[in-house]
Amino acid sequence: MTDSNGSDRKFKWVGTRPIRHDGVDKVTGRAHYGADFDLPGMLHAHVLRSPHAHARIRRIDASKALALEGVKAVITSDDIPELPLDEASGPTNFSDLSRNVLARDKVLYHGHAVAAVAATSTRIAQEALSLIEVDYEPLPHVLDIRAAMAPGAPILHDHMRTKGLKEAPDEPSNIASKMELTRGDVDQALAEADFVIEREFETATVHQGYIEPHACVAQTNEDGQTTVWASSQGHFMIRAYSARLLRLDISQIKVIPMEIGGGFGGKTTVYLEPLAIVLSRKTGRPVKAVMTREEVFRATGPAPATLINVKFGANRDGKIVAAKCELFYEAGAFPGSPVAAGAMCILAPFDLDHFTIEGYDVVLNKPKTAAYRAPGAPPAAFAAETVIDEIARELEIDPLDLRRNNAVSKGSQAAYGPKFSDIGLIETLDALRKHPHYEAPLGENQGRGCAVGFWFNAGMQSSAEVKLNEDGTAVVVEGCPDIGGSRASLAIMAAEELGIDVYKVRPVVADTEAVGINDNTGGSRVTFATGMAVIEASQDVVRQCCERAANIWDIDAKDVIWQDGCAVATGDGAKKLDEEGKLPSMPIAEIAAGAARTGGPITGKASLNARGAGPAFAVHLVDVEVDRETGKVDIVRYTTVQDAGRAIHPSYVEGQMQGGAAQGIGWALNEEYVYDADGVLANPGFLDYRMPVALDLPMIDTVVVEVPNPRHPYGVRGVGEVPIVPPIPAIANAIHDATGVRMRKLPMSPPNLLAELTRAGRA
Amino acid sequence: MTDSNGSDRKFKWVGTRPIRHDGVDKVTGRAHYGADFDLPGMLHAHVLRSPHAHARIRRIDASKALALEGVKAVITSDDIPELPLDEASGPTNFSDLSRNVLARDKVLYHGHAVAAVAATSTRIAQEALSLIEVDYEPLPHVLDIRAAMAPGAPILHDHMRTKGLKEAPDEPSNIASKMELTRGDVDQALAEADFVIEREFETATVHQGYIEPHACVAQTNEDGQTTVWASSQGHFMIRAYSARLLRLDISQIKVIPMEIGGGFGGKTTVYLEPLAIVLSRKTGRPVKAVMTREEVFRATGPAPATLINVKFGANRDGKIVAAKCELFYEAGAFPGSPVAAGAMCILAPFDLDHFTIEGYDVVLNKPKTAAYRAPGAPPAAFAAETVIDEIARELEIDPLDLRRNNAVSKGSQAAYGPKFSDIGLIETLDALRKHPHYEAPLGENQGRGCAVGFWFNAGMQSSAEVKLNEDGTAVVVEGCPDIGGSRASLAIMAAEELGIDVYKVRPVVADTEAVGINDNTGGSRVTFATGMAVIEASQDVVRQCCERAANIWDIDAKDVIWQDGCAVATGDGAKKLDEEGKLPSMPIAEIAAGAARTGGPITGKASLNARGAGPAFAVHLVDVEVDRETGKVDIVRYTTVQDAGRAIHPSYVEGQMQGGAAQGIGWALNEEYVYDADGVLANPGFLDYRMPVALDLPMIDTVVVEVPNPRHPYGVRGVGEVPIVPPIPAIANAIHDATGVRMRKLPMSPPNLLAELTRAGRA
Repeated sequence: MTDSNGSDRKFKWVGTRPIRHDGVDKVTGRAHYGADFDLPGMLHAHVLRSPHAHARIRRIDASKALALEGVKAVITSDDIPELPLDEASGPTNFSDLSRNVLARDKVLYHGHAVAAVAATSTRIAQEALSLIEVDYEPLPHVLDIRAAMAPGAPILHDHMRTKGLKEAPDEPSNIASKMELTRGDVDQALAEADFVIEREFETATVHQGYIEPHACVAQTNEDGQTTVWASSQGHFMIRAYSARLLRLDISQIKVIPMEIGGGFGGKTTVYLEPLAIVLSRKTGRPVKAVMTREEVFRATGPAPATLINVKFGANRDGKIVAAKCELFYEAGAFPGSPVAAGAMCILAPFDLDHFTIEGYDVVLNKPKTAAYRAPGAPPAAFAAETVIDEIARELEIDPLDLRRNNAVSKGSQAAYGPKFSDIGLIETLDALRKHPHYEAPLGENQGRGCAVGFWFNAGMQSSAEVKLNEDGTAVVVEGCPDIGGSRASLAIMAAEELGIDVYKVRPVVADTEAVGINDNTGGSRVTFATGMAVIEASQDVVRQCCERAANIWDIDAKDVIWQDGCAVATGDGAKKLDEEGKLPSMPIAEIAAGAARTGGPITGKASLNARGAGPAFAVHLVDVEVDRETGKVDIVRYTTVQDAGRAIHPSYVEGQMQGGAAQGIGWALNEEYVYDADGVLANPGFLDYRMPVALDLPMIDTVVVEVPNPRHPYGVRGVGEVPIVPPIPAIANAIHDATGVRMRKLPMSPPNLLAELTRAGRA
Repeated sequence: MTDSNGSDRKFKWVGTRPIRHDGVDKVTGRAHYGADFDLPGMLHAHVLRSPHAHARIRRIDASKALALEGVKAVITSDDIPELPLDEASGPTNFSDLSRNVLARDKVLYHGHAVAAVAATSTRIAQEALSLIEVDYEPLPHVLDIRAAMAPGAPILHDHMRTKGLKEAPDEPSNIASKMELTRGDVDQALAEADFVIEREFETATVHQGYIEPHACVAQTNEDGQTTVWASSQGHFMIRAYSARLLRLDISQIKVIPMEIGGGFGGKTTVYLEPLAIVLSRKTGRPVKAVMTREEVFRATGPAPATLINVKFGANRDGKIVAAKCELFYEAGAFPGSPVAAGAMCILAPFDLDHFTIEGYDVVLNKPKTAAYRAPGAPPAAFAAETVIDEIARELEIDPLDLRRNNAVSKGSQAAYGPKFSDIGLIETLDALRKHPHYEAPLGENQGRGCAVGFWFNAGMQSSAEVKLNEDGTAVVVEGCPDIGGSRASLAIMAAEELGIDVYKVRPVVADTEAVGINDNTGGSRVTFATGMAVIEASQDVVRQCCERAANIWDIDAKDVIWQDGCAVATGDGAKKLDEEGKLPSMPIAEIAAGAARTGGPITGKASLNARGAGPAFAVHLVDVEVDRETGKVDIVRYTTVQDAGRAIHPSYVEGQMQGGAAQGIGWALNEEYVYDADGVLANPGFLDYRMPVALDLPMIDTVVVEVPNPRHPYGVRGVGEVPIVPPIPAIANAIHDATGVRMRKLPMSPPNLLAELTRAGRA
C-alpha cells in the first residue's frame, strides 16, 4: 500500500504544474457555462421584481400577461408550497429561502422576485412582465444598520424575535440574533493594560462580481422527473434545495453541472432553479432562465455592509493583553449574515487570554446576503489589523514583530475554541520578513502596509470515485464544480496514488446521479476534502490491484506493495516468484487488462465528511501611492505570503492568492452598493460598480509557505479564501504610512480618502 | 444484514409489476434514441459502400467530393490506424473489426464501408458520396456455404488458415475454424441403437430487425477528448472498441448511452462510431451518423445462414442413446459465426452418454454476422428438436414424454461440459403438460407442435452503485442499456434490499464515466449479473446504515439488523435502548438525513464478473393452420413455458417470452436474405424482408416457471434469449402435424412450403 505521510513523502506529481485537464476546452470556448445550453422547444423565463424596497403585496393579476401570444405560464408564490416559518436544516432556513425565491405577502427589497413568466422568447417574456399587475401597499423601509437596530425602525418580519439573548424578547426586532465568544476577564485586563485603543469601522455592501450571471435550464417530464442544467458552486445543493422548496423527492431531480464563471460564495444557493422547474412543470417544456447583470446586482446575495467596534489593550512590551469586539453585520432581507464567521476570525491570529466578541445579525431592506470568499472575515480583519498597525506605531515596533510576538502557534487555543495543531502563521510572517519587498525603498507619496488574514477552512462532505479503465488509464469522478483548477489538482492526487501519468487520468465533475453527495465548492474545501476522497478512492483501487496481483501470483496479498504504478511482490512472495522464474512486478495496465478475468472491473470510491481542515494564515504586503489631489490610490507593489499546507498544483494556489488579493483590493478601494432614498440600488452594473481590472493592478507576487496540515494525507490546507482577508487592512495601513491618515470606512475611494485627507489637512 | 436466500425469502417488491421508471418518457416521446440528438454546428456523415461483393480497391480519389461546397472531410482506411492482422482480445479480432469498419485493400461484401464523408447537410454528404471515385478490381465472390468450403472457392482472406485442425494447413481456406465436442463412443452407440435418424437442415440469413437504425454523434475536442452519444447494447464496448481501433486512451473517450430501439445482439459492435470520431477530429465539429434501413440490412451483422447435419440413435424404449451433429455456420466476411454456441446448445437438453458435435466457421461474401438473441441456438434446435419429434412419432410416444425421459436435470453433465445445478427443464415440460392448450382440440388443416429450447446465459462484468439521497430516496446507477425493462427490475431489487418504495428509487443507465465497466446488455445477463451488482451495492448501503445507527445508538453493529427500511436494534443493543427509553428502530430517511454528521454520504458500489449464470430452458407449444393452396401458415395459438429462476418483474419476463417467440415465428416462416447473382441483397427493407407484425400473431400465452438459480441471491436466471430457440422446430413440428410434411429448410414460407406440399402430394 501507498505510504501517505504528507511531510516526508517524495512526490512525483504533487507540486508539479500540468496543463489543467479542462484548459483546452476553456480557451477554445468549447466549455459550456450556465447560459450555453439550449433544448428544442425551450421557453425563456424572466422574473418580475419588486419596484419597492418594502411593501405588502395585496394582489397579483397575471391575466393580461397570460393573454399575450407566446406566454405559456406565469407563476407567483401561490404556485410553490408555503413552507412553515421555522423550516430549517442546519444553517439554511428554507422558509426564508422560499420567500426569497418568490416573495410571499411582502416584498422586502427592491428587486425581490414577485412572479416569473415563461414565454417562447425572451422578448415576449420581458413584455409579459410589464403586463403583470401587482397591487402593492408600500411600507417604510430601512437601509442603514444603525437605523435598523434603532427603536421604532420599520420591522421586516413581524414574527422575528432576537435569538441568543439571555431573556427571550416579546417584541419583534430586526436583530435576528446575537452571538458571543468570550475568554478570561476582558474588562479587568483592559483596565490593567498599559494603553487601550478603541476604534469603529464601517464597510460597505459589496458584490462578489462573478463574471457569469446566474443561469439554468430545467426540464420536468410528465412523470415529474426533473433535470436541471445549472451553473453553481454545488449541484447537490441545487438538487437538495429545489427538492425541499418544491416538496419533491430528491430522487426526482437530477442536476447537471455546467462550468461556472465565478462564484466566490455567491452561487451557494438557489434563485432561478425552483422557478424554472415549476415553469417547466406547468408548461411541459424546458425552461431557461438567465439573469441580467442588473438582476445579479439587485437580487442576488452581496456581502454585507458591517459596523465593527474594537478595543485592544496592550502593554509597552508589545504584548496584546485583551480585546473587546462588537460586530454588526447586515443580513439583508432575511437573517443569515456571516457575522459568526467574522467573530470567529477577528481575533484568531492572536494568542489572547482575555477577550469578548459579540456579533449581531441584522435584517434590513437589501437583498439577502450570500457568502463571499472567507465570508465575514475581511471586515473583521480590517478592524483588528488596522488597530494592530496603530499599536505597532504607538510602540514603534515593526508591525511584523508585533504580530509575531502575539501570534498563535501549535498548541494555542484559537479564539473560537479549538487548539491549533500545526499552523503556519509564524512561518508566513518570517517568509515575508525575508522577502526583498519588505525592505525595498518607497517613492514619494508612497506608503507600505501589511496585514495578516485568517480563515479556518472547511471540510464537509465529499464523494469521489476512481475508475480503472481496461487500458490502465483512469477516470476520477467527483462532484464539486471546478472553480479554481480542482480538476487538475484532483487528477494529480489520483496520478500520485495510482502511479500513472497525470494525463492518463480524466477528472470529471459529475452530475448528481453519477457520484455520491458533494457539498458545495466553497470553504476552500475542494482540494482538501474532495482531494481526501480522491486519495481514498485511489487507494481503494490500488488495494484491489495488489489483491488481484497477489491472486494471479498465488502469493499472500500482504507481500504485495504498490510502487510506481506496479504491484510489486516482496518478502516470501518475491521469493516464490523468483523460484518460478517470474517477474515480481505487474504494471497497472496489465492488471487492468486482465481485470475481467480476475474478478471484474476495478473501481474505488470514498464518501466522507472531512475532518481536520487546516486553518490558513496569510500575510500581505502592499505599497500604495496616494494622489493627494484626487484621493486616488494606486497599488504599486503587492506581495502575498500564505501557508498552503501543501501546494498540489502551485499555479492554482498562486492563482487563488492573486485572485483573493485582487478582490480584496477592489473591496478596499472602490466597491460599494450605492442606494438612493427609495432603497433602489443606483449602481447595478460594472460601469458604476467599479471592480479592479488588470490595468488597475500590478503583478501580485506570491510566496507559498508549506506547513503540512497533519490531518490531510498530503498536508493540504485550503487556500481559496484567506487571501481576500488581509488586503483591506494592508491597504489602509499603507495609506496611513503614505499620508498619516487612518481610513476606517470603506471604500477608501478617491472621494472618501480625499475627504479624510482634507479633514486632516493633508490633501 | 439482509437475508438473501433466494428460495425461501418473502419478497415485497420482487414479483410485482410497478410501472417502469422509463415508461412515461417512452410513451410521451421524451426518451432520446440514437438519432434524436443534435449539437450546434453539427456535420452529417454518410458512408460510401462497396457496389461489389468482392473486389480489390486499387485507388480512392476523393478530390471531387472534397471540392463540393459544404463537404468538410472525407476519410478512408488511410485515416485510421492499420492494425496488425492478429490483433485480438478474447473473441474480438480488432484487425477484422477495423477492416469491417472501413475496408482496407479489399471489399468483401456488397455494402462494405469504403469511405465516409462529413458535410454540412445529409443531402450534401450523400451527393459527395457519388463524387468519390473508387477504382475497383472485381474478384469472384461466393455466397453459398457449401460453395465457400469447396476446393477452388474464391478465397476471401489469403492469410487465413483453418484453425482447430489436428494439422495446421498450408493452404488458405474460407473455413476459419473447426471445433468439436465429444463424449463416449458415438459410432458404436449409433451402431447399437434400435434405429437411427439422420437429417440435414438449412436455415437462411436473417436480420435482428431492430426498429432503430444505428446512429451516433461524436464530438472530438481540440485536446483529443471525445464524447460519443450512441444507441447500442453497450457503451463501454463502444468506448473500448473505438479506443482500440483508433489508438486512443480509453480515458479520452466518454460514451453517453442513448435509449436503444432494439438490438437483439446486433448492437454489440461498432460500425459508425469510429468513423464519426475520426471525422469529428478532422473537422473540429460534432459529427452525426445515422444509417438508413437499407444500410442496416446490407452492412450490419445479420444472423448466419447455416447447414446442419444431425444423426440421432434411439432405442424402442424411448431412450436416445447417441447423437452426431455437424454444424456449418456462415460467419460473413470475417470469422466469428456463433457456431460454437450452436454446438454447445444443440444437445444440451439431452442426457446423453455418446455424442460428437463438430462446428465449422465459414467466411463468404456477406456482411459479418453479429449476435442475434441466443446466437446460433435456433438453427441448432431446429435440427435437433425436429428429429426428436420424428423419433416421438416413430415411437408413438408423446413428444413431451420423450423429452422428459431424456431430459437433463440437476447433476446431469451438460453436453458442453459442466454439471448442471438446479435447472427447470422437467418443470417446464410438466407445466406445459398441465396447460389447457396441450389437450385443446384442433381444427381442420391445423397441427400442433412443441419444442424445447436451451440457452446457457451469461454472467460477465457488471458494476452498479446505489446512492442514498439526503431524504432517504435512492439512485441506482448502472451501465447496461435498458432494452427489456431492466431499469424497473434493478429498481425493484434495490427497493427490496433497502426496504423503500420502488418509486423512491431512481434507476439510471449511466455514461462510461459515471459507473464502473459494464459489459454489453446481452446474453440475458442484465437482470442476473447487473442485478447481482445492484443487490451487492444496496447491501453495501444497508451495512453502512446499520453501522451509522449502531454508532448513533452507541451499541455494537452486530446487534443491528435491517428490516423494512429500518435499522433495528436486537439483543444487547435493544436492551440498552430499552433501558434508555429509546425506540429501537431508525428509518432509512432518518439515517440519510443525518449522514453528514455521522460520517458523510452513504453510497454503495459493486463491480463483479458474475459467475453462476443459470441455464434456461423453455418449451413452446404452437398450433398452426396451413393453407394448402398457398402454403401460408397461420399461427393459431401459441404458448410459451419458461423457467425464469425468479421473475423480478413478471411483465418483462413475459415480454421477453413473447418477443422471443414472435421473432422465432418470423425466422421460421418468412425471414430470409435474398441475394442476386452479383451478391447484392435484393430485399433490404421491411416491405420485402417480411417480419411478423401484431396482425400476424395471436396473443402469445406465457407460463413462468420459477426454479431458483442457486447462484443468484434472488434465484434469477436470464430470460431474454431462450424464447427464440424453440419456435422454429415447434412450428416445423406443427406443420408436420397438420400436413405430414417435414420442413427442414427455412423459411417455411408459402412458396417453400407449397413446393414441399406439392412434392409430397399434399397440396
